[in-house]
Amino acid sequence: MTSALSPSVSARDQAELDQLYKRFAAAHMSPLWTHIGDLMPAIPRPEAVPMVWRWPTLLGLAERAGVLVPVGRGGERRAIALANPGLAGAPYATPTLWAAVQYLGPREKAPAHRHSQTAFRFVIDGEGVWTNVEGDPVAMRRGDLLLTPGMHFHEHHNTTDRAMAWVDGLDIPLVRQIDAGFFEFGPDELGTQATPASSRNERLWGHPGLTPVGAPTPKASPLMAYRWEHTDAALTAQLDLELEGHPGVVEPGHAVVRFTNPATARDCLTTMRCEMHRLRPGTRTAVTRSTGSSVYQIFAGSGVVRIGDERFEVGTGDLFAVPSWAPLGLMSEPGLDAFRYSDEPVFEALGLAHTEREEMA
Amino acid sequence: MTSALSPSVSARDQAELDQLYKRFAAAHMSPLWTHIGDLMPAIPRPEAVPMVWRWPTLLGLAERAGVLVPVGRGGERRAIALANPGLAGAPYATPTLWAAVQYLGPREKAPAHRHSQTAFRFVIDGEGVWTNVEGDPVAMRRGDLLLTPGMHFHEHHNTTDRAMAWVDGLDIPLVRQIDAGFFEFGPDELGTQATPASSRNERLWGHPGLTPVGAPTPKASPLMAYRWEHTDAALTAQLDLELEGHPGVVEPGHAVVRFTNPATARDCLTTMRCEMHRLRPGTRTAVTRSTGSSVYQIFAGSGVVRIGDERFEVGTGDLFAVPSWAPLGLMSEPGLDAFRYSDEPVFEALGLAHTEREEMA
Amino acid sequence: MTSALSPSVSARDQAELDQLYKRFAAAHMSPLWTHIGDLMPAIPRPEAVPMVWRWPTLLGLAERAGVLVPVGRGGERRAIALANPGLAGAPYATPTLWAAVQYLGPREKAPAHRHSQTAFRFVIDGEGVWTNVEGDPVAMRRGDLLLTPGMHFHEHHNTTDRAMAWVDGLDIPLVRQIDAGFFEFGPDELGTQATPASSRNERLWGHPGLTPVGAPTPKASPLMAYRWEHTDAALTAQLDLELEGHPGVVEPGHAVVRFTNPATARDCLTTMRCEMHRLRPGTRTAVTRSTGSSVYQIFAGSGVVRIGDERFEVGTGDLFAVPSWAPLGLMSEPGLDAFRYSDEPVFEALGLAHTEREEMA
Amino acid sequence: MTSALSPSVSARDQAELDQLYKRFAAAHMSPLWTHIGDLMPAIPRPEAVPMVWRWPTLLGLAERAGVLVPVGRGGERRAIALANPGLAGAPYATPTLWAAVQYLGPREKAPAHRHSQTAFRFVIDGEGVWTNVEGDPVAMRRGDLLLTPGMHFHEHHNTTDRAMAWVDGLDIPLVRQIDAGFFEFGPDELGTQATPASSRNERLWGHPGLTPVGAPTPKASPLMAYRWEHTDAALTAQLDLELEGHPGVVEPGHAVVRFTNPATARDCLTTMRCEMHRLRPGTRTAVTRSTGSSVYQIFAGSGVVRIGDERFEVGTGDLFAVPSWAPLGLMSEPGLDAFRYSDEPVFEALGLAHTEREEMA
Repeated sequence: MTSALSPSVSARDQAELDQLYKRFAAAHMSPLWTHIGDLMPAIPRPEAVPMVWRWPTLLGLAERAGVLVPVGRGGERRAIALANPGLAGAPYATPTLWAAVQYLGPREKAPAHRHSQTAFRFVIDGEGVWTNVEGDPVAMRRGDLLLTPGMHFHEHHNTTDRAMAWVDGLDIPLVRQIDAGFFEFGPDELGTQATPASSRNERLWGHPGLTPVGAPTPKASPLMAYRWEHTDAALTAQLDLELEGHPGVVEPGHAVVRFTNPATARDCLTTMRCEMHRLRPGTRTAVTRSTGSSVYQIFAGSGVVRIGDERFEVGTGDLFAVPSWAPLGLMSEPGLDAFRYSDEPVFEALGLAHTEREEMA
Repeated sequence: MTSALSPSVSARDQAELDQLYKRFAAAHMSPLWTHIGDLMPAIPRPEAVPMVWRWPTLLGLAERAGVLVPVGRGGERRAIALANPGLAGAPYATPTLWAAVQYLGPREKAPAHRHSQTAFRFVIDGEGVWTNVEGDPVAMRRGDLLLTPGMHFHEHHNTTDRAMAWVDGLDIPLVRQIDAGFFEFGPDELGTQATPASSRNERLWGHPGLTPVGAPTPKASPLMAYRWEHTDAALTAQLDLELEGHPGVVEPGHAVVRFTNPATARDCLTTMRCEMHRLRPGTRTAVTRSTGSSVYQIFAGSGVVRIGDERFEVGTGDLFAVPSWAPLGLMSEPGLDAFRYSDEPVFEALGLAHTEREEMA
Repeated sequence: MTSALSPSVSARDQAELDQLYKRFAAAHMSPLWTHIGDLMPAIPRPEAVPMVWRWPTLLGLAERAGVLVPVGRGGERRAIALANPGLAGAPYATPTLWAAVQYLGPREKAPAHRHSQTAFRFVIDGEGVWTNVEGDPVAMRRGDLLLTPGMHFHEHHNTTDRAMAWVDGLDIPLVRQIDAGFFEFGPDELGTQATPASSRNERLWGHPGLTPVGAPTPKASPLMAYRWEHTDAALTAQLDLELEGHPGVVEPGHAVVRFTNPATARDCLTTMRCEMHRLRPGTRTAVTRSTGSSVYQIFAGSGVVRIGDERFEVGTGDLFAVPSWAPLGLMSEPGLDAFRYSDEPVFEALGLAHTEREEMA
Repeated sequence: MTSALSPSVSARDQAELDQLYKRFAAAHMSPLWTHIGDLMPAIPRPEAVPMVWRWPTLLGLAERAGVLVPVGRGGERRAIALANPGLAGAPYATPTLWAAVQYLGPREKAPAHRHSQTAFRFVIDGEGVWTNVEGDPVAMRRGDLLLTPGMHFHEHHNTTDRAMAWVDGLDIPLVRQIDAGFFEFGPDELGTQATPASSRNERLWGHPGLTPVGAPTPKASPLMAYRWEHTDAALTAQLDLELEGHPGVVEPGHAVVRFTNPATARDCLTTMRCEMHRLRPGTRTAVTRSTGSSVYQIFAGSGVVRIGDERFEVGTGDLFAVPSWAPLGLMSEPGLDAFRYSDEPVFEALGLAHTEREEMA
C-alpha cells in the first residue's frame, strides 16, 4: 500500500478558497480533501505508542496511594490507570483498553457499583480479597482471572491484614468513545462478608464440558473465576503434548489458552479477549501484526518483547501495550507466562480483523 | 386436537373406484385420502412402546454371549441391541436410537473401524477397557461417558483379566432410515496398547472455560471423555445450591447436567443429546411430554418411572425407552442417578421440538 | 470403502447358540453381529430406487379421481402420492420426501387444516386456485412456488370453471418416521374468498434486500409465494452473466436459484430445500452424488437424466426421485428448467452432508 | 441512575498528594478517582450535540467547491463532511459516523481507491453518475442506496452535463478511533465507462427470496444497489396493510424498511444500519432513546424532530445528527420520508444496545 496521501487542490485564487473554507466552518462543514491522509491512512497509524510499565514502579506508587488516598464512595476504587504517552494524557493503555493497578489495604472495602463497562481482574500475586459479583463472593488468588461482566454489581473486600494489588482490565476507552456508558451505585454496606473457597458460579459452571440445564446462558461468561490451577494444567498439557509429538500448541514452544464463556464457547467477555500464553525456555515466537490493540502482563519468568521497531526486556509483573498493526514478537531464554487481553472481539464482530505474519528480523 | 381422521369418499360406483385404485397401483401412485389418518395423526402415534430392560437379564445374556461368540473382524463388536417390541423386530430402542450392551472378555480386543453413525459408551460398572479413538487411548471407568463422533476410527481392548460390559448408544436407526450410513474397516491390529490415565483429548480440552487456541473446533465434541468425578461434582453442587437457596436445579430436587461440546457449547454429539439426572431422595418430577424419543439407564439408586399410562419400578442398570410425546415422570424415595440420551438435537434443528408439562396424576 | 461385512461367529455348538438367540428374542434383544452389514453398510444402500413418473399418466389419473372422488373433510385433499417401488408400498417418493399430484376441480374447495409437516406447492401449469395460508389468500400460477410452513392453517379453493393440478411436496415420511406429527382441523367453511393478485406476505416481504422492521422473523420463510417472473429473471440473468464472462452459474450452462427465507437467508423451509435449475441448450452437468434424497420435476423443456446406472428421457411435467448417494447427471439438447427439492437441510443440520463429483461416463 | 460522581479523597497533607500525582504523571499513570465521573458517567454524556444541517446551504457550498476545487488523485473526492459542533472541530457527524455531501460536476470523474472503511451513498436528487464497484457499474438515481463495502475498489463518474450531489455515509470516525484503517489507490484511469441500467450485482442478487447458488455469501451485502422503486413499494405496502387492519408497521402511521444483506439477512453493512422511514400525514412517533448515534436525511416531505430538549423544523434534504441516548421523536403534518443510518450493529455485536421508550412531552 502507498501511504502518501496529500491534497491535490491545484493552485487557484487562494482568496476565494479561503473564503470558501470560512463558509464551510460557519456551516459546520469540513472538506475531506484537506485531511484525507490523516483520516484514512494507508495502514493504521495509531497515536498510542509501544510502552512498558514496570511492576515495581506501579506497585510502589500504588502502595503510596494506599497511604494517602482512602477508598470509598465517590472515588469508588483505588485504581491507577496506565496512560499511554501517545494518547494526549488520557488514562488509556490503548484507544480501546483500560489497564490499572488496583490496591486494597488490610481490611479495606471498595463499595458496590455497576456499569455497562466490562471488567476483569487478573491477579499477579497475593490473595485474601473477595470480590462479590451480584452477591456471589469470588476469592482472588495468584494467577486467577476474575470477571465482572457489564451491569453486574460488584464490590471488593480485603479480609486479611495484608494489602493486595492486582490488575483491572476494562473497555472504558471504547465505551467512552461511542457513548455507551451507564453507571450506578449499589448499597454502601458490603452485601456479604462470606469467604467461600469456591464461588456459586464456579460450582454451577466450572465443570469441563458440563452445562447446567437449569441455568440461563448469558452473552458474557456465567463462569466468573478462571483458576490458576486449571490454566497452568492446560498450558502444561499443551507443551507436554508437543514433546510427545501431538498437536496442541499454536507454534513450536508456544502454548495458548483462551478464557471462554462455557455457555457459548465464545470469548469470556463481549468486548475483550483474554488469554494466557506460555513460552518454553528458549522460545522465539513468530512476529505477527494484527488490527486491534492489546495489553500484556508478564505473569512469570522474563524475556524480550519486540513491538514495532522497539525491543524491551520485561520481567514478572511488567505490563506492556501493543498498538494496532504493530509487529509483535516474544522471546524468552528462561521461559515465561504472560497474560494478554485485547479488543479482538470488536474487530471480529465488525469484519475488521486482519493478521499478518512476518519474518523475524 | 381431534384425532378421528377417516376417508370421506362418498358412496359411488365401487367398481369404478376399484379400477382407479388399480391404475394408481400400476402407476406407482397412492391416494392420500385413504390413509391420511395413519400418515398424519392428530398427535404422534409411535409404534415404539414404553419398555424396560432389566440389567441382570442383559448382563447375563451378554456374559453367555461372551462364552459362545467370539469378537473379531466381520461381526466387529459383541454388542446386543435392545429391540423395542413395537418396532416389528428391528433392533432399535426407538425409531431413531440404538442402545446395546457391549461385552468384552478378559484381554479381548474389538478391531478398528469407523462409520458415519455417531456413537457413545456409558459405563454402568467396571473398568479396565481402553477405547482408542483416532489413536488416542481413552480409559473407560464407572460413570464415564465416552464419545466416538462420526467417522472417527475406534477400537476397544480389555487390558485386564476381568470382563467388562457397558452401554453403547448410536443413531443407527435414524442414519439407516435416511440412508446416510458409511462404514469402513481399520487395521486388524490394535493401533496402540497404551493405557494412560488421561487421554490426549482430555488433556487438551478438559479444563473448564479454557479453549486451546491451537486446536480446531469441530462440530462434534473434541472432548471425548466426560469423567464421573466431574459429573458427580456438578450434580452435587446443584442440589447443594438449592439447599442454600440459590438457582441451579431444573425443578425442586432435580439436578441435570448436559454433556456439551466445549468448542461450541452445543450438544456433545450432532444427533444425540446426553444428560445425567439426579433426584434427591423423595423427589417426584413434573410429568412432561416432548416430541422425540429417549433412552434412560438408571446409574444408581432406584425409583418408579411413569411412561404414558404405565408405571415401572426401575433399579440400578435398568434401561427404558420413552416414545415420542409419551408423558414421562420419575419419582424416587431413596434418590437416583439416571443417564439419559435422546434425539432432541434433531428435533431442534428441524423446528419440530415441543414440550408440554402436565399435572401429575 | 470395503463393503463386505459378514458375521464372524466361528463354528461352535450350534445348539447352544440357537438357545442363546432364543433367549435374546425373549428378552427383546438382538445381536449386532448377525446383521451389521445391513445396519451399517459401507456406503448408503437405499431401498428407494431411481424412478420416473410421467406427467400425462399422473394428470390423467388425477382427472379421473376428480370425477370419482369428492374433496372434503376427512380425506382432506385430492392428492395422489408418488410411491417409490423400493419402499414396500409406502406412499413415499423417498424415505424422507412426499410428492403428490393434487387436483382441484372447477369451484371446488379443500377445507382448512394445519399440521406439523412442512408443505409446499409447485405449479407446473394453470392458475385460478387460491391457497389461504393463515387467512392470507395466495394466488397459484404457473411456475410459482407456494409455501405452507408447519402448523399454518391452510385451505385451497378453485375460483374458476377449469380444474387445476399441481405438485405438493411435504416431509411426511420423515415426520412419520421420527413421530413428530401433529394435525388439526380448521373451520369447515372457507375463511376468505378474496382473490388479490398479491398476498399480504408478498407485500410485506417480497422486496429484494428490504426487511420490514415491524415484522417478526420466523424460522420458516414469512414470504410464502415465490413468483415465476422473479425466478425466471434470476435464471436468465445468471446465464446472461456467464455469456458476458462474469460469475454466477454453478457450472458452465447451469444456472441455479435457491428459494430462501428472506428473514434468515437460510432455506425457505426447515426440512426441505427448494431450487430451480436451468440448463442452457446443449448442456451436460457434472455427475455428482450426495447424501440425502431429492425429487425433481421438469418444468419446461426436456432432457436425459442419469441416476445411478440408469438413464431416463424426461419431458415437461415428468417427476423423478433420486435416492441417497446415487450418482446424478442431467443433460439437455433443447435446454430445460427443473424444479428440485431435497432433504439436504436435515443432513446439513446433523453433520451428515457429503457430496462427491465424479467423471462423466 | 444517580449521576453525581465526585472524588472522595479526604483532606490530607496536600503537599504529599501533589507529590504523588507528580510521580503518577512521571510514570505514565493516572488515578481513576479524580475523573471517574467523566470516564464513567451515570448515563451516556455525549460530546456530540443535536444538530441540523440545511440542504440548501450544503448544496450551495458544494456547488461553490465544484467551481473552486478540482477532483482528482490525492484529495480523491469532492466531499464535504458535516462537523458536529460538539466534537472539537473533527469532521464527524457523530463519534462513529461520517456524513458528507459529495459533488461531481458534469463529466467529472473521481479516481479509484479502496479502504477498510465501509461506505454508502444515498441519493436525495438527480441521476447520471455511475459508481463502479470492483468494476461493476452501478447507476445512482434519486432515492437509491448504493453500497461500497470495505476494501472494494470504487470510482465515480458523471456521464452527463449536469452536476450531481449526494450524501456519503462512512464509519471513518470509528475506524480512525480504533486504528483499523487501510487505504489503497486504484488505477488512475477509469476502469469502465459502461452505463448499464442494472448492475451485475443486482442481476445476481436483486430477486426477492432467491439466492444464486453459484455465488459466495459475503459478510457485507453482495447486493449493492437498493432501488427507490422497491423501497417506495415496501413502505407503501406497510401503510396500506395498516389501513386494511393487518400488521406490518412499527407503530401507527410509521413504516420502516431496513436495508439488509440478502446472503445473511443481517444488516447490509457490518458497521452501519441503513433504514428508510415513512410517516403518514399527521403522524407523531413515540419518543425513544437508544445507545448509539444516528444521522437522518429527510428525503421527502417535512416535519418536526425533537432531539433531547430541542425541536427542529426539517424539510427535504436536511440532515440531522442524533447523539447517543438522546430522546428522539418525529412528527409530520404533511407526512415525510426519511433515510436513517446508525451504528447500531456495533452496539448489538458488543452487547451494548439498549432502547427506552418515553412518554411524549
